[in-house]
Amino acid sequence: MIKAKGFAAISPKSPLESFQFERRNLRDNDVHIEIQYCGVCHSDIHQVRDEWGPGIFPMVPGHEIVGRVLAVGAQVTKFKIGDLAGVGCMVDACLDCPSCKEGLEQYCENGFVGTYNGKEKDGTGTTHGGYSNSIVTREEFCLTISSNLNLAAVSPLLCAGITTYSPLKHWKVSKGQKVGVIGFGGLGHMAVKLAHAMEAHVVVFTTSPSKAADALRLGAHEVVISKDMTQMKNHTNSFDFILDTVSAPHDYNIYLTLLRRDGNMVLVGLPDKPPELYPGALIMGRRKLGGSLIGGIKETQEMLDFCAKHNIVSDIELIPIQKINEAYERMIKGDVKYRFVIDMKSL
Amino acid sequence: MIKAKGFAAISPKSPLESFQFERRNLRDNDVHIEIQYCGVCHSDIHQVRDEWGPGIFPMVPGHEIVGRVLAVGAQVTKFKIGDLAGVGCMVDACLDCPSCKEGLEQYCENGFVGTYNGKEKDGTGTTHGGYSNSIVTREEFCLTISSNLNLAAVSPLLCAGITTYSPLKHWKVSKGQKVGVIGFGGLGHMAVKLAHAMEAHVVVFTTSPSKAADALRLGAHEVVISKDMTQMKNHTNSFDFILDTVSAPHDYNIYLTLLRRDGNMVLVGLPDKPPELYPGALIMGRRKLGGSLIGGIKETQEMLDFCAKHNIVSDIELIPIQKINEAYERMIKGDVKYRFVIDMKSL
Repeated sequence: MIKAKGFAAISPKSPLESFQFERRNLRDNDVHIEIQYCGVCHSDIHQVRDEWGPGIFPMVPGHEIVGRVLAVGAQVTKFKIGDLAGVGCMVDACLDCPSCKEGLEQYCENGFVGTYNGKEKDGTGTTHGGYSNSIVTREEFCLTISSNLNLAAVSPLLCAGITTYSPLKHWKVSKGQKVGVIGFGGLGHMAVKLAHAMEAHVVVFTTSPSKAADALRLGAHEVVISKDMTQMKNHTNSFDFILDTVSAPHDYNIYLTLLRRDGNMVLVGLPDKPPELYPGALIMGRRKLGGSLIGGIKETQEMLDFCAKHNIVSDIELIPIQKINEAYERMIKGDVKYRFVIDMKSL
Repeated sequence: MIKAKGFAAISPKSPLESFQFERRNLRDNDVHIEIQYCGVCHSDIHQVRDEWGPGIFPMVPGHEIVGRVLAVGAQVTKFKIGDLAGVGCMVDACLDCPSCKEGLEQYCENGFVGTYNGKEKDGTGTTHGGYSNSIVTREEFCLTISSNLNLAAVSPLLCAGITTYSPLKHWKVSKGQKVGVIGFGGLGHMAVKLAHAMEAHVVVFTTSPSKAADALRLGAHEVVISKDMTQMKNHTNSFDFILDTVSAPHDYNIYLTLLRRDGNMVLVGLPDKPPELYPGALIMGRRKLGGSLIGGIKETQEMLDFCAKHNIVSDIELIPIQKINEAYERMIKGDVKYRFVIDMKSL
């Protein structure tokens, strides 16, 4: 076994603290990565606080991982020692069901294995994530990372980037379309950059007037303060597509009425209380409300390549691992522009 | 003006009673139809009881109209005296907006004019529906009816038929697909016949075990009693498409989990209380929930021709107009197989 260190929640809701553990020995198709940076996702907080049902503790969170390859198994072909590599939200899936065969491992019909808080398919134990100095992952779930971008700022692409890129691509967002982005946080600011690069007309909905200048700077063409019903109603029946990145409970219906006929609104955030849905908002205009979960490995690579080409990274605040508990408190207050990334040298 | 008689609600929630009124004189592009049969839609009850916001009284309901042409205006080309003709839910729209130009008058961006409880676009007055001996309608909103089918049983196609046909076609239901129909009433029984004719594998969801035999007889391949969670869960992740025809409040989420990845569920019923939506039911499987409103005139004609080709009509109970108040009470209890149609000779 490979000794590893990291930060973990030892039990539900306990603060994160230093933790020693073991990674599995390298298999023939495994890549051993020295982690340099790991992004901090809001779902990390939900899971270490056990808000999403029974978690596996101690829990080392983190699924926005970038670093350098330390070692490769005998059958690995895509990576060699010294290469940059990334790991996102998944580290395994059956690769045999129809969804996996279409490159949609996130919808694996036998269940994908999460990068942390998951059970290895072979029963060898629990998966541990990126708040750590290293990770061992099968090659199929490792991503190739361009050296042209700021590596720390690349790490959030592995979750926030793909979670927003995948629905924008699946629903065929393209030049000239009017695209709304609800929420301007970790996911929302990535959606704005990506939709802008896809040449859409991007409108950000936010409750915070203080975010307007940043939204415009990062690629939005318009900002709507969503508490202002006059501003909202000016956009009735006009959007081709709206991506809802907000996890806090909020009203979906007002946004549905902003879609044009046959328009689509897609949810990527998971509020803990179910909102009410007015069927008339869908029926009047043949509108559709969908959902989307991260993205497949092939599409994640496509997204990373798209970002390298368009010079897109996340806007981040780099922190040492010792500040992680403080960072969680700030994230809960929305006080981060726009993603914390842990500098793993600090470990 | 043309003298007409019918049955009307004189004021909100009053019973229907005999009513004399006037239709407009024939314009150059108008068709004057002697009404032979008019289907009774659940929305008639909502409107005469003023449950959908302020209605216009006295109100002559009815938008499933078939009969014979009595007279035509000078510029009418599609109809001649003696032809069969039908009128559905709409009698006018701008015919100039993008939706109208695509043949989707039901989504007219300037608002379509309902067959009753509507305001004529030229300000000449209120529209009155099919519980009447005649109607005057512009040619563009008159449908051609085949003489090969039982005319009384054709009338419900003008609303129940097109409301279910349009989403089945728009979402491309086709041979071999697994299609669910929620509810087995006026709309549901038409959806079963139509989806069967489109060669789908049709599964009916009903709360009433007593309806199972009829559902199978009319074209369903399977019936699921929706209160039985074991039966429901056997269909998890398996439907390509589910059409929800139920207007009473009910849980959408359990049905969403029965859709396969990328499956669609479409609402055509309007519950008066908004159901709760669990976003996870959409996100896990990239599922979509949509809505659909009746259908355009061109598609209504296509549906009528499809029904004539496949020998599809509604299963009806023919009543004299004098039984209309009793029929409403029975409909509210779900006691109709599966659509009341008024024989207008009784007027």
